[in-house]
Amino acid sequence: MKLCVIPGDGIGHEVVPVAVGVLQAVLPGLQLVFADAGWEEFCRNGKALPERTLAAARECGAVFFGAVSSPMQLVEGYRSPIVQLRRELGCHANIRPTLSLPLASSRSGIDLIIVRENTEDLYVGDEQSDGEVAVAIKRITRKASLRVARSAFELARNAGRQRITIIHKANILPRTDGLFRDCAREVAQDYPEIAVDEMLVDTAAMRLAQAPESFDMLLAPNLYGDILSDLVAAFGGGLGLAPSLNLGVAAAIAEPVHGSAPDIAGQGIANPLAAILSAAMLLRVWWQRPELALRIEQAVRTTLLDGIATPDVMSPGVSTQHLARVVIERI
Amino acid sequence: MKLCVIPGDGIGHEVVPVAVGVLQAVLPGLQLVFADAGWEEFCRNGKALPERTLAAARECGAVFFGAVSSPMQLVEGYRSPIVQLRRELGCHANIRPTLSLPLASSRSGIDLIIVRENTEDLYVGDEQSDGEVAVAIKRITRKASLRVARSAFELARNAGRQRITIIHKANILPRTDGLFRDCAREVAQDYPEIAVDEMLVDTAAMRLAQAPESFDMLLAPNLYGDILSDLVAAFGGGLGLAPSLNLGVAAAIAEPVHGSAPDIAGQGIANPLAAILSAAMLLRVWWQRPELALRIEQAVRTTLLDGIATPDVMSPGVSTQHLARVVIERI
Ligand SMILES: CC(C)[C@H](C(=O)O)[C@@H](O)C(=O)O
Ligand SMILES: CC(C)[C@H](C(=O)O)[C@@H](O)C(=O)O
Repeated sequence: MKLCVIPGDGIGHEVVPVAVGVLQAVLPGLQLVFADAGWEEFCRNGKALPERTLAAARECGAVFFGAVSSPMQLVEGYRSPIVQLRRELGCHANIRPTLSLPLASSRSGIDLIIVRENTEDLYVGDEQSDGEVAVAIKRITRKASLRVARSAFELARNAGRQRITIIHKANILPRTDGLFRDCAREVAQDYPEIAVDEMLVDTAAMRLAQAPESFDMLLAPNLYGDILSDLVAAFGGGLGLAPSLNLGVAAAIAEPVHGSAPDIAGQGIANPLAAILSAAMLLRVWWQRPELALRIEQAVRTTLLDGIATPDVMSPGVSTQHLARVVIERI
Repeated sequence: MKLCVIPGDGIGHEVVPVAVGVLQAVLPGLQLVFADAGWEEFCRNGKALPERTLAAARECGAVFFGAVSSPMQLVEGYRSPIVQLRRELGCHANIRPTLSLPLASSRSGIDLIIVRENTEDLYVGDEQSDGEVAVAIKRITRKASLRVARSAFELARNAGRQRITIIHKANILPRTDGLFRDCAREVAQDYPEIAVDEMLVDTAAMRLAQAPESFDMLLAPNLYGDILSDLVAAFGGGLGLAPSLNLGVAAAIAEPVHGSAPDIAGQGIANPLAAILSAAMLLRVWWQRPELALRIEQAVRTTLLDGIATPDVMSPGVSTQHLARVVIERI
């Protein structure tokens, strides 16, 4: 079994080794292939996602991606490596669960999964500007919409979920978001045991803020999924605890939802739990080892119950390394 | 003084008369011009925003708009009348304040204003589909971005606000969202007393869910403003209490943020406070009568403090009419 490890930038270098250590603890034969990507790599070699990294990722199938810093200004030649990687590896579904955790900062009763389309929408990178007028293309295809809907309903069936809420803004975008919604409804017919409803993205933002516990699964186009998953992460204890899995047919990328956090990078206090929980998702969904995933998730839960966590969720907090040791001992 | 009154659909017919009654109570000479728009109107006459409605709105300058039902499917010839009205009247800034209210459902310490660009972005209605591939245009112009930024900074200056946070997703959309951000930064230079920062829309959704009290003003492109304003409305007691003002040079449209709420329409329990607070915004900003606006806002506050509200915010709740009478008595 092989894993391509891409720490990326900032705290990616701190949390990825921890999560990989956890995976090695439960999968002793795991082979690691390290590779570079991100802003630091772009500054060194002019490519945010070098060919050899892509080749390594393709060869391994399983990928662990830390975090990358994105420039906020237009930089010629730079494209977000994680967005490229998702598309190049055909990871068409981004699975982002939020679960209430035994923490003061977490709201209770939440157990939802957002499935986010991962390859198109405004993320296609088709943008133009003459300085006065700028346009970007939002692209929605039947193919990608059916594919991500299929993954969502399969996941719902396997996980015994009851209901999928389709997110869109079809009152303003009847052709693009309407297509996404119609494809989801089409796929839904093959899953009569799963209830389906739909909600405008603005209404969903409000309902998620008011009553996140009332949702089971959400299926959303790329950008709405990006926004809503960050929103809900706030209620699951913050980004330091939010895992994700980018899932395709030939590859899967485990990826903590958080960014490279330049403000705390290098201090040894980054929260490794989002990365550890992403590793558990890789085990459950990609390697089909749910029993190992469960052991890791239980270890995280009991550690938090005992009041051990990094400073982003608890005060006084422990270091990344300390927390990592405690969790690994409990697995 | 003239006001064009467009109740629209559903509970628009219930809350608009109340808000208009409040305006008449404080502005005895106010002349009303009633006009139609919305889904019911579209079904009757084939136009969601008839020419004569637009003409009446133009003539009055001040407009009160209730709510409209939007079809979720593509309906040939239908375009959202409120989106059209905002653009046709040149109401380039949509001002959406959220304030903590004396209610269990409201979080404390919140006092923020979202200023939303109101004429372009994905709302331009430029969409195509062949059934397999659908594309929509996200359009951002220098002109509209500078204009809405100017309104936001003027408002900040007049209202004594300290800080404006520019919302974008320039890591993925450097040309469109980057242009919006750059225009805002350009305008900011004329307002050295106001601090400026920027935040990715996904991060903003998370931060607003975690700590809405940490924001002062937000300046956002159309769609992000739509999503984030609904999100925060959840913390201000819900949509039943969220007012807005669409502001232009020649016209202003008061508009409660809520929709037509077909589920409760006709029951006499719709919350009229969002409409009443929108009327107060019209008084403060458009008619430059802040002292009248304040009287209305105080009346709403003391009414809530006394535990009188509709069922959406309090149980047992009173009727729309009962609540309206109480508020009007207190003005
Ligand atoms: C870093 C950025 C490109 C990315 C995205 O927008 O997808 C991030 O926000 C995420 O949610 O994984
Ligand atoms: C009804 C709809 C067109 C509208 C919008 O998206 O602007 C509404 O959600 C709002 O926020 O006023």
